[in-house]
Amino acid sequence: MTITKPTLVVDKKKALKNIEKIKEKIARTKNSVRFRPHFKTHQSAAVGELFREQGIDTITVSSVEMASYFAANGWTSITIAVLVNRHEMESINRLAGALHLELLLDSVETALFLEKNLKHNVDVWIKIDTGYHRTGVEWNKKEEAADIAKAVNTCSKMRLKGLLTHSGHAYSASSPADLKAIYRDTITKMSRLQKYLAEEGFSACEISVGDTPTCSVVGRFEGADEIRCGNFIYYDLMQKALGACVEKEIAAAVACPVIGKYPNRNHLVVYGGAVHLSKEFIVDGEGYKMYGLPALAKKTGTGWKEVAKNSYVASLSQEHGVINADDSLLEQVNVGDILYILPVHSCLTANLLRDRTLVK
Amino acid sequence: MTITKPTLVVDKKKALKNIEKIKEKIARTKNSVRFRPHFKTHQSAAVGELFREQGIDTITVSSVEMASYFAANGWTSITIAVLVNRHEMESINRLAGALHLELLLDSVETALFLEKNLKHNVDVWIKIDTGYHRTGVEWNKKEEAADIAKAVNTCSKMRLKGLLTHSGHAYSASSPADLKAIYRDTITKMSRLQKYLAEEGFSACEISVGDTPTCSVVGRFEGADEIRCGNFIYYDLMQKALGACVEKEIAAAVACPVIGKYPNRNHLVVYGGAVHLSKEFIVDGEGYKMYGLPALAKKTGTGWKEVAKNSYVASLSQEHGVINADDSLLEQVNVGDILYILPVHSCLTANLLRDRTLVK
Repeated sequence: MTITKPTLVVDKKKALKNIEKIKEKIARTKNSVRFRPHFKTHQSAAVGELFREQGIDTITVSSVEMASYFAANGWTSITIAVLVNRHEMESINRLAGALHLELLLDSVETALFLEKNLKHNVDVWIKIDTGYHRTGVEWNKKEEAADIAKAVNTCSKMRLKGLLTHSGHAYSASSPADLKAIYRDTITKMSRLQKYLAEEGFSACEISVGDTPTCSVVGRFEGADEIRCGNFIYYDLMQKALGACVEKEIAAAVACPVIGKYPNRNHLVVYGGAVHLSKEFIVDGEGYKMYGLPALAKKTGTGWKEVAKNSYVASLSQEHGVINADDSLLEQVNVGDILYILPVHSCLTANLLRDRTLVK
Repeated sequence: MTITKPTLVVDKKKALKNIEKIKEKIARTKNSVRFRPHFKTHQSAAVGELFREQGIDTITVSSVEMASYFAANGWTSITIAVLVNRHEMESINRLAGALHLELLLDSVETALFLEKNLKHNVDVWIKIDTGYHRTGVEWNKKEEAADIAKAVNTCSKMRLKGLLTHSGHAYSASSPADLKAIYRDTITKMSRLQKYLAEEGFSACEISVGDTPTCSVVGRFEGADEIRCGNFIYYDLMQKALGACVEKEIAAAVACPVIGKYPNRNHLVVYGGAVHLSKEFIVDGEGYKMYGLPALAKKTGTGWKEVAKNSYVASLSQEHGVINADDSLLEQVNVGDILYILPVHSCLTANLLRDRTLVK
């Protein structure tokens, strides 16, 4: 594929290294941990194959649609890690009839709804809120969790798999030490609830965790039965800012044609905007919004060098990206060149460019 | 189409009214103004037909890809309103051979590049910067504009059409009066440059303008030969905040299934996140980020009521939207219901949902 317009370029070597790193941590962990990486980050059958090559055959997705896509690409054990959307029972039943499916719920009502509407067997996780406050039963509302467990057990088609959480509040952490503390706190809360449920007769509840920031900074996954992180395959500038990765681990960047050069205001303009990178940004130390960092293309082949110094994507409109470029970058780049932009949030960028992704 | 997942619902009646309103202003304008609406907002052949029904047959797009899409849907006069991307000459030539194509440039270098690479006739606009500072020749660098005009005229395949600007700085305006002033300022600057070029021998330079905020507040389009606004077809909360529209003119909203309800923190959670709405936000008077406003579904059929009071989309992750809901909204909505979210920036939302758009 020749690059003629904004294209997500995935550095296969880096991506494979990122997978290996998580696998090594799993191997180091004393308890047995399964790996069920989240495929919402890449949404790509080709990138899925990188996981498959490393012996991974269980995955997580964030929509029924994504589950159907990966099912069509030969994946046979899938967790849909969002609460059940009642309007998609037809597709859920189709998937449940074709492969091993795991679903999430956080209410007795949904358990009853599933009891009525399921046509095939599924495994079920109770979604737990350990501090993110998006969805889930609050971890200390133990009776509520027990009521759901009971409701799940009344249905012959649902098997209670365990307790699942996403510590999304990790994205507000201020340091790697902070992230480690969030991992420990998550495991502590989940274990307490697990213990309570065991006392109530629900003895085989597993614990599933797995945001990328905490999984990246801990050395082992003590206390977890399953790890579901996803972003680590590409990482991005947000993860770097959190201390979850370093620049050379970032495995995806958007190749963008340069269409304008304005030396009098130190601007380069690329074809590559909000519909390619997404409007996710980081506020830098001086209060400026930053939508990505530019890097020169390698002299030969596809790929990028280190990010350019003192330069950043300062604004995005639908198709344009405006780069505040320092003199050195400006000197090296001309209209017609390809510039790479390291994304702030690779999941959203990959979603936008899922039909234009190049794994090399 | 039954709504089972996030779907952009377009209110056809409102959209048609929005088109009529611009057409009426064009009719009221003393000078002759052509309408070349920007189709980047909807990117939809079906919505394009609403324009065609009203006699509009010339359009603007923001990428070669979009031009190809609309060409395939029978549109035969298209302006690609971004600077020429040199990597797409093959597609540009294909389009230029098949229909009436208009291109943008802002440098002599690109004119020379086109001279070498064009295989068919095109019309060319010189992109002018009247204050947005994204791309374009600064309006007062008159000799620079004349040099480009000269270069264009050396090529037998390029016909100089005129001067084109996008006053994107209108999005930073603080009031409708401010927007009107930006419209006047834009026309003044463009007219001066037009006059200078006429004195230099480039006598038929037209003026093309057309951001939605200014086009929405002025009563007539005095001084313009062509209007290219696009967002007005749907409008959105950003346009409302600018005073460019009122709520009942917003013609598109995202229908989202409710998947979670948390009365203890007044939260509703919908299946509908950053990959459906985009991460565009507005900061409200109290400093909170707002990613959309919820509205109840109409009792019958498809469509939405007025936005719910004291409620807003407070955060978005990839697939989830968290709504801060007041007690009244909370009482009326349950898991399994469909809630409509009015978008902050309809262009980005429509781009994300272009394969899941329902015009009704």
